[in-house]
This record gives sequence, C-alpha cells and structure tokens, in this order.
Amino acid sequence: MLNNFAPIVLLLLLVSGCNPQSNHKLTSGVHIENVIRKGSVIKVKPEKLEFYKSLHANPWPLVDSMLTVCNIRNYSIYYRDGFLFSYLEYTGADWNKDMEKLAADSVTQAWWKLTDPCQEPVESATQGEWWADLEEVYHLD
Amino acid sequence: MLNNFAPIVLLLLLVSGCNPQSNHKLTSGVHIENVIRKGSVIKVKPEKLEFYKSLHANPWPLVDSMLTVCNIRNYSIYYRDGFLFSYLEYTGADWNKDMEKLAADSVTQAWWKLTDPCQEPVESATQGEWWADLEEVYHLD
Repeated sequence: MLNNFAPIVLLLLLVSGCNPQSNHKLTSGVHIENVIRKGSVIKVKPEKLEFYKSLHANPWPLVDSMLTVCNIRNYSIYYRDGFLFSYLEYTGADWNKDMEKLAADSVTQAWWKLTDPCQEPVESATQGEWWADLEEVYHLD
Repeated sequence: MLNNFAPIVLLLLLVSGCNPQSNHKLTSGVHIENVIRKGSVIKVKPEKLEFYKSLHANPWPLVDSMLTVCNIRNYSIYYRDGFLFSYLEYTGADWNKDMEKLAADSVTQAWWKLTDPCQEPVESATQGEWWADLEEVYHLD
C-alpha cells in the first residue's frame, strides 16, 4: 500500500517545492530554498555601449553556465541614459563564497577583461564597489 | 503495467512544467505560460522619499492583490541616488488590457493619488511616459 502511494507523495513534495511565486519554499515544513534578490547599478562608457551590448547579445555559454553553477538565476541587465541596472536572484547559501568561485573562473576572468573597461562605478559608490547596490523599497511575490 | 507507470509520467510532466529557471513553461508540448520581464525607471522627489518608502514598506493589501489579479508578479522597486528602478514579471496575455483594469480600480487610484506626487519622469522620458522603460541588454534564466 505504501509503495503504491510513494510516487504520489513524491509528486506532491516536488510540486509544493516549485511554486515560482514564493521566495520561501517549504516542503513538509523543511526549508529547502531561500531566494535573495539583488539590484545594482553601474555606469557604461558611451563609446563602449555598443560593444557592451553586442557582447551581452551573445554571451559566452561558459560565462552563463558558471553563473548558474554559482547559484545565480533570473539575471537581467538593463540600459538607459548611460546606466546599466541589474536584477538577479541568488539561491545559494554563501554569496561571498560563490562570488569567490566565480572570480576564480578563467573564462569569467576573460569575459570581465572585456566588460570591465566598458564600465565605471557611479559617483555614490563606496570605495572598491563596482556594481553599486540598490535599496529594495518594495516587493510583491 | 501502464497504470504502474502513470504516476511517474504525471510526475515528469509536472516537474518539466514548473522549472523556475524557464520562462517558457511547457507541459506535453502545450504552451501554458510566457513571462514578460519589464524594467523601468522614474525620479523620486527628495522631500518625498521617506514618505514614498514608508508607504511601500507597508503596502495596502488591496493594492498588492489587484497587481496579482492583473498578472503582475515578482515585482520589486529599488532606490538609489534620487531614482526608483522597478523590475516585474507579467504573466498575462494582454498587458494593455490588464493595465486598464488596474487603472480602473478605485483602491489603486487612491494609492496612486499618494505615490504620483512623489515621482517625476526622467528627463529622457517620452511624452506621456511616467515610469520610463529600460532596455534589456542581457538575460540569463
């Protein structure tokens, strides 16, 4: 009897864990995922804008896959009026550790060697800050 | 034999349809959801910033629920350096129709009566544009 129901129980557990509208995903009371949202801004140099856009129109597959390995998903970069705005969701447990892993990746380093010269921090960025954090003032799941 | 496998097949179909990393969710080849992402920017008047933030720290439940009814989800508003940036996902079939429905809602109108005076369009906004569209230059699911 138990065996007959096992696939159904597994099904319910999986479905309850993949509701895309919830940031706090619970399965039978066990916390299995916590999404951190992150918004950032940086300036793009006018003479480098088209190059930056062309790079990102056809991003290197290994750059994308390394971001995924480092628990980044639903990552968008927007442009307007000389600024780049990014929105991403982080599903890992240790942001700093994952960012160190990303920075240690040779393909990502080669990508940044092309993208970094296109950018410069906003005037209000703190010392050493590249992409500057935005402050979340509202969120609706 | 077929009956024994039926729950497994159902499980696979549902799991394939609820991958949170996919914008195009397919179940048995039927297109069931298409998410449109939207980034926007507007200025916030310095003297109204704290009021705007306090409103959005405790948004009216009916404003939130009307956004949900109008197929808006995963909606965040960020602040930095005098600007508000928004990111949202739209899951409906007719953006203009849903925006008309939202604008016709009396509670939303009362909310906007408070929030509109806090904002002003960016200099580059087109005639009649309130929140100005950002251009998506990159996306990773």
